Amino acid sequence: MENQRPLILVSNDDGIMSKGISELLRFIRPMGEVVVMAPDTPRSGTSCSLTTNEPIHYTLVRKDVGLTIYKCSGTPTDCVKLAFHTVLERKPDLVIGGINHGDNSSVNVHYSGTMGVVMEGCLKGVPSIGFSLCSHEPNADFEPSGTFVREIVTRVLEKGLPPLTCLNVNIPAVKELKGVRICRQTNARWENEWENFAHRNDTHYYWLTGEYKNLEPDDELTDHWALDNGYVAITPTTVDVTAYALMDELKTWF
Amino acid sequence: MENQRPLILVSNDDGIMSKGISELLRFIRPMGEVVVMAPDTPRSGTSCSLTTNEPIHYTLVRKDVGLTIYKCSGTPTDCVKLAFHTVLERKPDLVIGGINHGDNSSVNVHYSGTMGVVMEGCLKGVPSIGFSLCSHEPNADFEPSGTFVREIVTRVLEKGLPPLTCLNVNIPAVKELKGVRICRQTNARWENEWENFAHRNDTHYYWLTGEYKNLEPDDELTDHWALDNGYVAITPTTVDVTAYALMDELKTWF
Repeated sequence: MENQRPLILVSNDDGIMSKGISELLRFIRPMGEVVVMAPDTPRSGTSCSLTTNEPIHYTLVRKDVGLTIYKCSGTPTDCVKLAFHTVLERKPDLVIGGINHGDNSSVNVHYSGTMGVVMEGCLKGVPSIGFSLCSHEPNADFEPSGTFVREIVTRVLEKGLPPLTCLNVNIPAVKELKGVRICRQTNARWENEWENFAHRNDTHYYWLTGEYKNLEPDDELTDHWALDNGYVAITPTTVDVTAYALMDELKTWF
Repeated sequence: MENQRPLILVSNDDGIMSKGISELLRFIRPMGEVVVMAPDTPRSGTSCSLTTNEPIHYTLVRKDVGLTIYKCSGTPTDCVKLAFHTVLERKPDLVIGGINHGDNSSVNVHYSGTMGVVMEGCLKGVPSIGFSLCSHEPNADFEPSGTFVREIVTRVLEKGLPPLTCLNVNIPAVKELKGVRICRQTNARWENEWENFAHRNDTHYYWLTGEYKNLEPDDELTDHWALDNGYVAITPTTVDVTAYALMDELKTWF
């Protein structure tokens, strides 16, 4: 990296046209050479999904000094994989997903296409960060996030992250952020998840909706507590999902 | 559960017509009341993805003594969520994903729709197991798996699983299985992931493929080692992806 500016790969799940990714680029563009490979349409809730049954394609949108933007027909995870294979001239120093329109803390990490970007960057051995603002508004105000996004990116570029770990950063949609908290994933459950849309003969139609139920609302170590109380929540996240604590017990079963 | 047979929800990602789910039903049908809600078409590589931008629908396929089968237009995760909301008369005692056609050990856990079923069952507070056979053949031989599938299901019905944990069970496609091993997730990387399919004007088409590279091939604790050596690999898996070991270090950064 001597004499080279950091190379930063950016993707998201709200798609190339979203305000969140534009605002992210505005915040981080001075910090390195930025390459964007983002979905050409919104891909919320796509998790780490892959396109396995058809080809995907990408196209250059714009090339400017220090910023190159591609759009891609695939999922967020496809975007990262394809960028590594095609348009990145070297292994990037950082992969960023976001800034997402909507909360990806707590159990939402599993459904998040933004975190799909981040998990994939991490699996490729690159420090990776997901940023999400807790507002689904297309025109949400990302401005208060800027200072924190830049500070977190600076720290990760300086210090790196251990293997198999990445950061899931969620930001409350408030004007005055109180600071940063290092958190664990909140245990929560989605309830009343479906709106009954219609019945046609024997076929039943439902639309996904739902109510988020925090199962530990008073625990100050959780990411959802931080968000509820005006803090930026940084949840260190692992791609090694082994439940190590259960291994010895299971050995007694067989 | 007194006087009640266990209620088992089954889904998969290869779709309702796959051999793997039929074979699973043959193995487990004597063990409880089985309800299937499975995708109407193959949904491989869909991870924990959700259908957020259109309604989904389900239809009864068949109702028999102890076995009810529904097909659903959604993702594997949608299937689980929708079954809980609509067709299950009570909270099930077990959620099973599979039997998948193809290996979901190692880093593949993140892309797997089969494990999407299992993670969702786990997030709903129900003991959940994913079964995958390491063969993509549509007509793969699932017969040697039967004994192990039944044994693992029996143990989990007896003993349950701790909160936030589930099982990722992978089975080598061999005639003679050597037994069961309790494993951790292998660290691995996918390489050469894209086949360049075509270029049309400025648009570049690629098809997902790839070579699996095991980064710790000699580690006997890993799931891939177990599979390579003829054992059924049981990897206990957590839905709490917090990287706890990194929390203290991160607190010094801000």
